[in-house]
Formats: sequence, structure tokens, C-alpha cells
Amino acid sequence: MRYPISFSPLLDSLSASKDHSAFSTECDVSCHRPRHKDCEIKATRVLSRPITRQEHIMTDPAEHLLDWLRDAHAMEQQAEQMLRAQSGRLEHYPELKARIDQHLEETLGQQKIVAECIERLGGSTSIVKDLTAKMMAFGQAAGGMTQTDEVVKGANMSYVFENLEIASYTSLIAAAERCGDAQTKAACERILPQEQAMAQWLLEHIPLITTQYLDRSAAGQEAKK
Amino acid sequence: MRYPISFSPLLDSLSASKDHSAFSTECDVSCHRPRHKDCEIKATRVLSRPITRQEHIMTDPAEHLLDWLRDAHAMEQQAEQMLRAQSGRLEHYPELKARIDQHLEETLGQQKIVAECIERLGGSTSIVKDLTAKMMAFGQAAGGMTQTDEVVKGANMSYVFENLEIASYTSLIAAAERCGDAQTKAACERILPQEQAMAQWLLEHIPLITTQYLDRSAAGQEAKK
Repeated sequence: MRYPISFSPLLDSLSASKDHSAFSTECDVSCHRPRHKDCEIKATRVLSRPITRQEHIMTDPAEHLLDWLRDAHAMEQQAEQMLRAQSGRLEHYPELKARIDQHLEETLGQQKIVAECIERLGGSTSIVKDLTAKMMAFGQAAGGMTQTDEVVKGANMSYVFENLEIASYTSLIAAAERCGDAQTKAACERILPQEQAMAQWLLEHIPLITTQYLDRSAAGQEAKK
Repeated sequence: MRYPISFSPLLDSLSASKDHSAFSTECDVSCHRPRHKDCEIKATRVLSRPITRQEHIMTDPAEHLLDWLRDAHAMEQQAEQMLRAQSGRLEHYPELKARIDQHLEETLGQQKIVAECIERLGGSTSIVKDLTAKMMAFGQAAGGMTQTDEVVKGANMSYVFENLEIASYTSLIAAAERCGDAQTKAACERILPQEQAMAQWLLEHIPLITTQYLDRSAAGQEAKK
């Protein structure tokens, strides 16, 4: 996906983060505002070196599979943080909180399963700082849309994040099959139904959560958490 | 959803953006890196005024509905940009490009439908700069996860964005019903199936797109777009 030039610095710096440098050394986001000159200069520097990233292109399917498993591991770490934060915040929506807590347990199991796949393929789960940073950017942007109606947007964004996981494991299953890696395929097939069930539960409950929020808000009760 | 303190500056500045100020006046993102002192100072300033946002709490369900419709309008603007960018970039995945172009047309129609709802409820679609900024942050974070395997992550993120739209319209339908606004409910019910169909198409094609990408990459052909 490419964005208009005003979006590009973030994308470029995030993309560049694959070489384990951008996130730790550059102003990676919000460089689209002309007034922030310092960021603009850095952003221009990022934009002026697309060639560098060409050097990192992989061709071996197994290498892509391992790369995507690392993304999935970072994704599950972000999922854990989002679920913990949301559960810890909810007060007036016990059913939602209980389902989030259940999925938090599932998420911890998924982290283990993905880590085992990475280690079996000879990779490490320790160097995922830059990937986690990308997942953080996603979670932050998602979280940024939650405010006065936090529980509603929170449930919506949890549903969105579950679908990020569904897409990722759907991709991983196809990649594992293409690589003839039956163990990784089976591992991802164990995880996918848990994500699908959580996404389905959330979608089914979004109308009720929305109505409960509006009712509490109209009654002058605390509604957002 | 609340994040650990290191995540908070973005969330606070994004949340604060509802009062039409944060995005235009503050370093709104990536302030979680200790080395970026300038951002840190601004971030601290944002963190030190949570009370301010309490003043903006709405209680009237109709007010929430209009607020969410504005979010939906910004979301469809972001969807248009993401679809145009992705379609313009794709070269070797004609089926995906064709489906994206079809949904781009649908998206333009959805923008009109949502705008009509906003205007009928006495709102304006012109002052959505801050909301669009939030949607941009989401799209940027999503786009940031696309890189060497751009078409794969791009398809995954398009699927994720479709599910953001599905969650939003599901919420809006419940809110419109709660407000007794049959016209807005019907409008959202016209849009929702288009989002569901696009999400379903993408999910069904993610395995093929993934395999095609891995095959092209393994054959040394340009694979990412």
C-alpha cells in the first residue's frame, strides 16, 4: 500500500524499520506536519534512500515464513497489552471484561505456540523490537480513536485487531503449506479458530455494548468504561 | 482502551484531537521514545491535562450518533485514499486490483450516503480534519506494516480496514435504532453488506495472494506489487 506523499515519511520509516534502525534512530511518525521542521528533514532523508531497502528483499519462501511468524509474535504481544489494558479499565461491562480475560489467556498460549514455531525454524523471538514498534503504532492509532465513547470504540478496535490476527494466520497457513511446513501450518490452524471466535463474539455484542453505552450516557452514569 | 504510559502521549494527543486542537498544534505521535526530548516535553504537557477532555463528554444519544457518523465519514475518506493508493501500485495482481477498484467506486457512494446522514442531522462534513488525522494515523500504522511483502500485508490490512468499517456500521445501526433514526439506520444497512462482501472476498483470496507472492519471489520476479 502506498500513501500520498504527505503520508510517506511514516510509511518509509516504518518500512525501513525492518533493517532494525528506523525506530531507534529516527522520528518515525507525525512527520507530515510542515511545521515540524526537524522531523521533515529526517523524513526527507528516509525518503531519499529507497534503494537501501531493496537490498533486504528475501526470495526464499521459508525466510518469508519465518519473517511473518516474527510479525505474528509481535502481534500477539501487542494483543496481550491491548487486552490487559482494556480489561483493567472496564468497570460497567462485566460480560465484555470476562470475554476479554478469556481471550487474554488464549493469547498467552498463542504467543507460546508462535514462539515454538520460530525457534523450530531456527529464529529467535528476542529481536522483535522493531516489529513490536510497528504493532505499537497500530495499537496506538487504534487506541487513538477511543475517547469519550471508549468502551464502544474499544470493542470495535478489539474486533478490528482480531481480524488483523485472522488475516495474519490465514496468510501464515498458506505460507506454511507452500513451504511444506506441516507443523507450522497445524500450529496456525490451532490458533485461528480462537481468533475467529473472539471476533465473532465481539461483532455479535457490539450492538448491545453500543446501546448500553448510550443508555448509561443518557442516564448521566459513567458510560465509557 | 488504555495503554502503558510509554504509549500514552499518542493516545492523549489523538484523544485530545476531538477538541480540534491537538493535531494542529502538538507533536502528536512517536513521543514514546525517550531520546526525542522535544516531543517528550510536549507529550508531558498533553498528559498533564486529562481533566480538559472530561468537559467534552456528551450525554444525548443523537449527539453521539452524529459524532460517530463524522468518524464514519472520515473513515470512508481514509478508505478512498488507501484503495486508490493500493490500486495505483498493483501491477502483477490484476484480480486484486479489479476488486479494489470496484470497492473504490462503492466507497465513493458510501461517502455520499454518510454525508447525507450528517447533513440531515444538522451536522457538517467540512470540519473533520482532526478525525481524518486519526484515521490517517490508523492507515499509516497499517501501511507501516507493509514492506518487502507489500501485496500480502496490503491485502491483509485492506481486510482489517474493511472490518473497521463493519464494526463501525454495526455500531451505527444500533445507535441509529436507539435514537429512532430510521433513515440513518437504513443508510448504514445499505453500506454494511458492501463492506462485508469486500472483507469476505479479501479473506478468501489472501491464501492465493500469499502463494502467488511467494512463487513470484522465489522465481526472482517482482512480487510485492
